[in-house]
Amino acid sequence: MRVLGIDPGSLNLGWGFIETQNDQRVTQVQHGCLKANPRHDFLQRLPFLAQELDLIIRELKPEVTVIEKIFLGKNVDSAFKLGHVRGVCAVQCQKEGSVVVEYTARAVKKQITGSGSAEKTLVQNFLYRQLNIADPFKSEDASDALALAFCHVLLDSVNKKFQRLGV
Amino acid sequence: MRVLGIDPGSLNLGWGFIETQNDQRVTQVQHGCLKANPRHDFLQRLPFLAQELDLIIRELKPEVTVIEKIFLGKNVDSAFKLGHVRGVCAVQCQKEGSVVVEYTARAVKKQITGSGSAEKTLVQNFLYRQLNIADPFKSEDASDALALAFCHVLLDSVNKKFQRLGV
Repeated sequence: MRVLGIDPGSLNLGWGFIETQNDQRVTQVQHGCLKANPRHDFLQRLPFLAQELDLIIRELKPEVTVIEKIFLGKNVDSAFKLGHVRGVCAVQCQKEGSVVVEYTARAVKKQITGSGSAEKTLVQNFLYRQLNIADPFKSEDASDALALAFCHVLLDSVNKKFQRLGV
Repeated sequence: MRVLGIDPGSLNLGWGFIETQNDQRVTQVQHGCLKANPRHDFLQRLPFLAQELDLIIRELKPEVTVIEKIFLGKNVDSAFKLGHVRGVCAVQCQKEGSVVVEYTARAVKKQITGSGSAEKTLVQNFLYRQLNIADPFKSEDASDALALAFCHVLLDSVNKKFQRLGV
C-alpha cells in the first residue's frame, strides 16, 4: 500500500510517504516540507503548492492520501485560510486517483503512542524506530505528515487482520 | 479585456464572463452555474468543480479572474468550507495565467448601482440593460458572478480614463 500524509499549511506544507508490502513490511519512506514564499500574497502561494504537490503525487502515486482533519476553533480567519490549502490538496490527490482520508492529530497520536495528548517528540521517536529513519526530520510539519500516513498504515493493517479472521 | 467573475460555493458555483474591446464595447457575455452533486461528500465535490472550471478557463482565457471577497463572520464552519472552494478557484485560474482580483459583494453593488446595500434585482436589471442580456439569469450565483466581472470592467475603464488624462 502506498500512503501519502499531508499536514496542510500555506507557508509550510508537510508531506510524508510510506509504502508497505502485503506482509506489512515497510519498503519506502520519504518525507519533506514544501515552503512557499512568505513575501507572496496568500492566494499566489496556492499555485506553487499545487504544482509541487502534483509532482510528488505523480512520482509516488499514493493510493490513499491522508489530510489532517482540523478541530475548528474560534479563529475564523485561520480556518478560512487553512480551508484554501486543504481544498487544493484534496483536488491534487483526487485528480490522480488517490482516495482522501482524514484523521485528527489527536487520533493519530492515540493510534501511534496510545495517548491522544502525547508529546510530538514521542511520536517522532516512534516513527524513527518503526520506520528505520536515519536522518532527522526536515521539519515538524514533515513528521506530522508522516505520522498521518503511518496512522493509516496501522489502521489498515488492523482492518486486514480482522478481515482475515472474518470478524 | 477578458474578465471572469466567480461566486464560489461547493454546491453552486456561479461564473460570469465579459469581453470588452479597447473602446469598452462589450463583445461577449457568458454566464452559468456549476452544480455539484449534493450526495457527494464535500471533498469529493472539489475535483468536479476544479475540472469544470478548468474547461471554462481554457475556453474563455480570462486575463483577470474576480473572486468574491468574503466578509468573515462568526461561522467558522462555513468560512472553512468556502476557503476550500476559493483555494481551488485561485489555483485553476492562476495556473492558466489569469490574474486574481477580489471584491466584496458590497463593493460590487456600490460600483454598479451607487449603493452598497442595493437589492440584487437592481443589480440584475442593470446587468440586463448594460450587457444586452436577453435570457433570464440561470441562477442568482451566475448573476452575482457576472456582477463581479462587470465591476472589474467598470473599474478598469475608470483607471484607463485617469491614465489617459495623466492623473
